[in-house]
Amino acid sequence: MARLGRSTWDLQSSPVYVAGVGTVAGQLEGQGPLGQDFDIRLDNDRIDDDTWEHSEQRMFARAVQTAMERAHVTSEDIDILVGGDLNAQLTGFYFGTRAFMRPALGVYSACASICESLALGALIVHSGHAQRAIVGTSSHTSTAERQFRYPTEYGAQKPPTAQRTVTGAGATVLSGAPGAIQLTHATIGSVVDFGIQSPWEMGAAMAPAACDTILQHLRDTGRTFGDYDLVVTGDLGHIGLTLLRKLLAERGMEPEPERLNDCGALIYDPKQSEVFSGGSGGACCTIVTFGHLFKRLLDGTYKRILVSATGALLSTVSAQQSDTIPGISHAIAFERKDV
Amino acid sequence: MARLGRSTWDLQSSPVYVAGVGTVAGQLEGQGPLGQDFDIRLDNDRIDDDTWEHSEQRMFARAVQTAMERAHVTSEDIDILVGGDLNAQLTGFYFGTRAFMRPALGVYSACASICESLALGALIVHSGHAQRAIVGTSSHTSTAERQFRYPTEYGAQKPPTAQRTVTGAGATVLSGAPGAIQLTHATIGSVVDFGIQSPWEMGAAMAPAACDTILQHLRDTGRTFGDYDLVVTGDLGHIGLTLLRKLLAERGMEPEPERLNDCGALIYDPKQSEVFSGGSGGACCTIVTFGHLFKRLLDGTYKRILVSATGALLSTVSAQQSDTIPGISHAIAFERKDV
Repeated sequence: MARLGRSTWDLQSSPVYVAGVGTVAGQLEGQGPLGQDFDIRLDNDRIDDDTWEHSEQRMFARAVQTAMERAHVTSEDIDILVGGDLNAQLTGFYFGTRAFMRPALGVYSACASICESLALGALIVHSGHAQRAIVGTSSHTSTAERQFRYPTEYGAQKPPTAQRTVTGAGATVLSGAPGAIQLTHATIGSVVDFGIQSPWEMGAAMAPAACDTILQHLRDTGRTFGDYDLVVTGDLGHIGLTLLRKLLAERGMEPEPERLNDCGALIYDPKQSEVFSGGSGGACCTIVTFGHLFKRLLDGTYKRILVSATGALLSTVSAQQSDTIPGISHAIAFERKDV
Repeated sequence: MARLGRSTWDLQSSPVYVAGVGTVAGQLEGQGPLGQDFDIRLDNDRIDDDTWEHSEQRMFARAVQTAMERAHVTSEDIDILVGGDLNAQLTGFYFGTRAFMRPALGVYSACASICESLALGALIVHSGHAQRAIVGTSSHTSTAERQFRYPTEYGAQKPPTAQRTVTGAGATVLSGAPGAIQLTHATIGSVVDFGIQSPWEMGAAMAPAACDTILQHLRDTGRTFGDYDLVVTGDLGHIGLTLLRKLLAERGMEPEPERLNDCGALIYDPKQSEVFSGGSGGACCTIVTFGHLFKRLLDGTYKRILVSATGALLSTVSAQQSDTIPGISHAIAFERKDV
C-alpha cells in the first residue's frame, strides 16, 4: 500500500523533485526579514493594473513564468497546472494562468491550498500521469480583505489577534527528474471545527487542524519531531503558534522551540506597520516555503522539513449566517538530496 | 507512460470501479423526465433549514450517506473525500461533509468540478493511496442565483439563453474492488476563452471548452465518437449543445445525433416552468450521470460513455470588473464490466 496509516501518501517509490520555483512578494513582504529570499519584490502592490484582482492575477502569472525559467522549461513542457487562491471561484488561479493554455486543476482549502496543490501535483507526477506539473497559489491583502472582512478603503480597526493577508504568489515546477529537493510525503487533513466564529481569530480557528495533521503525519510515518529539522505551519501567526504549542503539550508533545515555527510568524518583523499577529493568506506559506525554506534546505541549514499549510474555512455568506469557522491543514515533507 | 497524448490519464492498469452512488434531486428536478432515477426527491428545496446554503449542505451530506449505504460501507471505510460546489470558498462541500471527519480535498472548476473530482478521486485509488474515495458535488438554484446573478426573491426576468441551476447533490464511492462500472480514463481540460461576457449565456461560454476536451480525448486515446454509445456534456443546455454540434462540424466531426447529448438538456422537460435553455450547476452533470446514465450502463442500454462536465469561470467580482467568462471541461470515460 502506497498509503501510510490513515492519510499519508508515500511518494518515494517513484520520486518527485522540485525543478524550480518562482516567488513574487508584495511591498511589505519584500521589506520584511525574508525580503531577500524572494525572486520579485514589488514596490507597488497594484502593479499598475486597474483592479487589485487583476494585480493578483498578474502576480500569479509572474510566479509561474519565473518558476519555468528557473527550471529551464517553457509552458509547452508543462503537462498540468494545479493551484488555487482565496478569491471566490478561484479567479486568481484560472485567470492568472489561462495564457499558458495548459490542462488545469483548481483546488481550494483556503490557505492550505498550497499543500493540497503540492500533494495532488506530486501524485500526478509520481503516478506517471505528468512529466512536469506546475503548482502554485496567490493572495493579495486588498482582494482578501474586501472578500472576508471589509474593503481596505473603509479603514476598519483591527484587534491584535488579526493577521495581515500576504500579498504575493509562488509557483514550483515538480518533476520526476532528480533534483536537490525531494517531496517525499503528503498527509491529507480533515476538517476540524473548534467553534471559532470571529474572522479576526484565524490563528485560533486553524491551530487545532494543524495539531491534528502534524500528529497524524508523525503517527502515519512513525517519525517524531526529532526527525525534522523544522516543522512549520502555514499562517497561524504568533498567537496561533502559541496555541499550537499548547495543544501539542496537552497531547504530551513538546518539540524544542527551534523545531516548530510558522510561516506567518516568520514573514514580517513585528515592528512593521499593521502586521498584528503575523501573516496569513494563500501566498504566505507558499512564498516562505519556496523562497526562504527551500534556500535553507539547499544551503545545508536543514536536511528535512515538514510544511503543514493551514486553512480557515469561511466565506462572506457563512460569516453572515453565523456559521463557525472550521480549519483544515495538509502537510508536505521535503528532503534535501545530494545530487 | 500512464498518460496518453497531451492530457488523458489511463487508469486501467490498476482499475477503479464505482462501488455505489447517492443522488438527491430538488423539487423541479424530481418532477422532470429523469425524476424516477434519483434516490431522494425533495418536495421542498428548503429541507426545513434556516437558509438555502444550509439546505444545500444537508443535501450534500444525504448524497454521501446514501452512496455509502449503497456501497455497504461506513465513513470509517472511506479514506478520502474529494468534491466541490459553486459556493464561494466551497462551503457546500466542506460544511456538508465535515461531520464524516475524513481527510478532504476541495476542488473547483465551476460545474466541471464533478469530473475534476472523479479524475482526482480515481487517481488516488488507482495509485494505491486510498482504498475507497468518495467523490461528489452539489448545487442549489437559490444559492447559485444570488451568487452569480440576482437573489431569486428579486424576481429578475431572464432571457431564453438563461439556464436553471439544478438543485441537487450526488456522490459516489470509488474503489479498487471489481464492480459493474469502471472508470477507465480522465481527460483534463484547459481554460478556453471565447470572450463571452454575459452570465446569461453560459452555454456559449462553455461549448468551446467542451469541444476542445472531447476532441483532445479522442486524439489522446485514438478513439472516435463511434467508440462511445453516448458522449454527454455537463450543462451546455439546448443552445450550448447546438453550438457544440456546430463547433464539432467545423472541425469535420459530425457525430450521429443520438451519440451526443447534454445533461442540462436531459434533466428538464422544456415544458417545465422557467427551465429556459436547460439545466446547469455543479449537480446537473453529477445527478444525471450517477442517477440516470449509470442505470443505463447497468441495464445494458450503454456499454461505454464519455462524460465531459463543463464549467464557466466567473465570479461576482469578475463580472463586475467586466472580465470575460472562460470555460473549462474535464472528461471521464465509464465502461460496463460484466462481473
